[in-house]
Amino acid sequence: MDIVQYMNQTGSAAREAARRIASSPTAMRNCALMATKDALDDARPRLTDANAQDLERGRASGLSAALMDRLELTPGRIDAMLEGLDQVAALPDPVGSITDMNTMPSGIKVGRMRVPLGVVGIIYESRPNVTVEAASLCLKSGNATILRGGSEALASNCAIAQCLEQGLLAAGLPGAAVQVVETADRAAVGQLITMSEYVDVIIPRGGKGLIQRISDEATIPVIKHLDGVCHVYIDDDADDSMAINIAINAKTQRYGTCNTMETLLVAESKATELLPILGTNYGEAGVELRGCQRSCSILSTAVAASEADWAEEYLGPVLAVRVVSGLDQAIEHINCYSSQHTDAIVTRDHGRAMRFLREVDSSSVMVNASTRFADGFEYGLGAEIGISTDKLHARGPVGLEGLMSQKYIVLGEGQVRT
Amino acid sequence: MDIVQYMNQTGSAAREAARRIASSPTAMRNCALMATKDALDDARPRLTDANAQDLERGRASGLSAALMDRLELTPGRIDAMLEGLDQVAALPDPVGSITDMNTMPSGIKVGRMRVPLGVVGIIYESRPNVTVEAASLCLKSGNATILRGGSEALASNCAIAQCLEQGLLAAGLPGAAVQVVETADRAAVGQLITMSEYVDVIIPRGGKGLIQRISDEATIPVIKHLDGVCHVYIDDDADDSMAINIAINAKTQRYGTCNTMETLLVAESKATELLPILGTNYGEAGVELRGCQRSCSILSTAVAASEADWAEEYLGPVLAVRVVSGLDQAIEHINCYSSQHTDAIVTRDHGRAMRFLREVDSSSVMVNASTRFADGFEYGLGAEIGISTDKLHARGPVGLEGLMSQKYIVLGEGQVRT
Repeated sequence: MDIVQYMNQTGSAAREAARRIASSPTAMRNCALMATKDALDDARPRLTDANAQDLERGRASGLSAALMDRLELTPGRIDAMLEGLDQVAALPDPVGSITDMNTMPSGIKVGRMRVPLGVVGIIYESRPNVTVEAASLCLKSGNATILRGGSEALASNCAIAQCLEQGLLAAGLPGAAVQVVETADRAAVGQLITMSEYVDVIIPRGGKGLIQRISDEATIPVIKHLDGVCHVYIDDDADDSMAINIAINAKTQRYGTCNTMETLLVAESKATELLPILGTNYGEAGVELRGCQRSCSILSTAVAASEADWAEEYLGPVLAVRVVSGLDQAIEHINCYSSQHTDAIVTRDHGRAMRFLREVDSSSVMVNASTRFADGFEYGLGAEIGISTDKLHARGPVGLEGLMSQKYIVLGEGQVRT
Repeated sequence: MDIVQYMNQTGSAAREAARRIASSPTAMRNCALMATKDALDDARPRLTDANAQDLERGRASGLSAALMDRLELTPGRIDAMLEGLDQVAALPDPVGSITDMNTMPSGIKVGRMRVPLGVVGIIYESRPNVTVEAASLCLKSGNATILRGGSEALASNCAIAQCLEQGLLAAGLPGAAVQVVETADRAAVGQLITMSEYVDVIIPRGGKGLIQRISDEATIPVIKHLDGVCHVYIDDDADDSMAINIAINAKTQRYGTCNTMETLLVAESKATELLPILGTNYGEAGVELRGCQRSCSILSTAVAASEADWAEEYLGPVLAVRVVSGLDQAIEHINCYSSQHTDAIVTRDHGRAMRFLREVDSSSVMVNASTRFADGFEYGLGAEIGISTDKLHARGPVGLEGLMSQKYIVLGEGQVRT
């Protein structure tokens, strides 16, 4: 079948299913999540077989070790998928929740009701467990989903899709509420991100290149997360040991995550004292330092940073270090080079903490905490479909609310306008 | 100067000003609003002269009577602009307001702070009073604005822009926080809606054609309002006199507004009794009726509706009428033909009212009230920059909140992630 026709059919079925999912009772959606869990548990041998095919193809085509690792569905990862379904089912139902109901001078009552967006298109790379994770969050929030995983994970994703369909049908919901695009043809993505009559929002998950390409070409709104160039600023008035703890944790607790610190800013009054201690710690952890002129004069282990270093997301054991004159220069540096993801200040000074919160224009702004906390689970959202570095609609970690809209509801007793 | 260069300079100045406006104290922004009011009041003769030039040019180029009317700055309209500035200044400052602050298991406190979007581009047609209205809402919400009004109002808008700049400078804020594009060249719009490094969101105000064109061509997010094909459904269990009042008010209170009813749906059990009464009322008001077959068999004054009538925004004294079998068919009709603006049910039945609220996918859904209430002021927003028929970010009447984003703030006491 022709790809455009195939995608249009998928889209049209999703649109139809979205209506039914949106008005389905909480218990039915939770029942579908639990039935999917059972179906996945029963299908373990089939999932493993399908995954083995993907791994075999990946090996033959020379996928990198990192991609091969992400592609693998180990028994432990299948357990985690099942556990994830339990967690999503246990979340309160956000569909139809009403807030801000107030009576107006005319006598009408006006409030807002949370409702699904409709059809969510998810585009992601190798990890097949994303299929269950994303589908369950969309289902819980009353949306239909079209999932387009990496072609290298196609067999695994199709096997998972069967379980999702089984779960939906067992609960009496339309199977088309979750559809996996069952073709490796790249034209499917081009169609998915432009068929605005069928899809309400696109969420790409993956590397910056993929996301940039999708958001450039999409004619449908995209909730996107580009890069995480996160900063920690150690203020003049920082508590020394707190500053050291946070600066070490933010960089070394995990290197590959988007909320990892990539640039450390240190107030000049603190630099001579703290940088040598930090340098020793980073050295022991194997972190390469790239410093400004003054950092390099204090830290013998640092090499000179180039202009490009200030905007770089290393995603590895490299850290840019700059000595700044104080809060003003720190804020200026951050608002210039930060990717507006997550930035933190370490200070005991209330006024400067408040200024940092107000003036740093990033999706998460922190006082005296590690940037590594920027995460839907740590923020109490109960789930995370991604992190948005956009400003419109959803900003920062995106949970169920980011997959929803609010409509106004008006309750009257016959009021008319005069 | 070349248009691209001119717009880039405007954009760059706006971006720079946006930083200062975003972190300016409440009092300074309110002071700028009050100083603008004084400046406009002092400039009445200059405003009237500039407007006279626009009117003269409009007359010469054969502008329609309706456009000429909207273009005119009467003393009453200048008074209304001044009063609008008072109202906006009196609104609570939304910038920096913090909500949902909770303590997490890790001990960090997580909340959300409302912050400006940055630079807002407003594109509108003839009415010069929009210049002050839009600029004041953007300023209050801490945003910088670039205003591109209709070329027919250029002299009036430039005169108003001077007063706005005067007001900003008097308050110690950058004049570039509000800029009017001072050229009639259409290429300026093309540049404005694609210079994503300088502009964060575009709000077009005007006819459907203008808005559709802008949202097709923009590479920046657009908060848009297309059309208002609004419905009233009179349910089997409606109170008769309430149903008649609402159906008359929703159609005849004003014809040209987007929240005016364009299609009336009547449950068949009510049709024989209510349609003749409604027909008489509409007849007296001069409303032309276009009915389905059954409506026409009851209403001798109705002509047969074509398929196109169900999706038509008449913006005038014409109404489509359809008899439906009941709630299911009403919801189906609305979700098929409605522009997802505003739809209302008239019923005494609680269960059906709840179903209508839940299942009708429109930005405003009403029970027992006239669709004419869909409006930022009637909803208690204190202001309205427009109505959004989109689902992402802002939906329905858009007040100051729609011009803002929420960032996460985290307050820690040295927590690190383990």
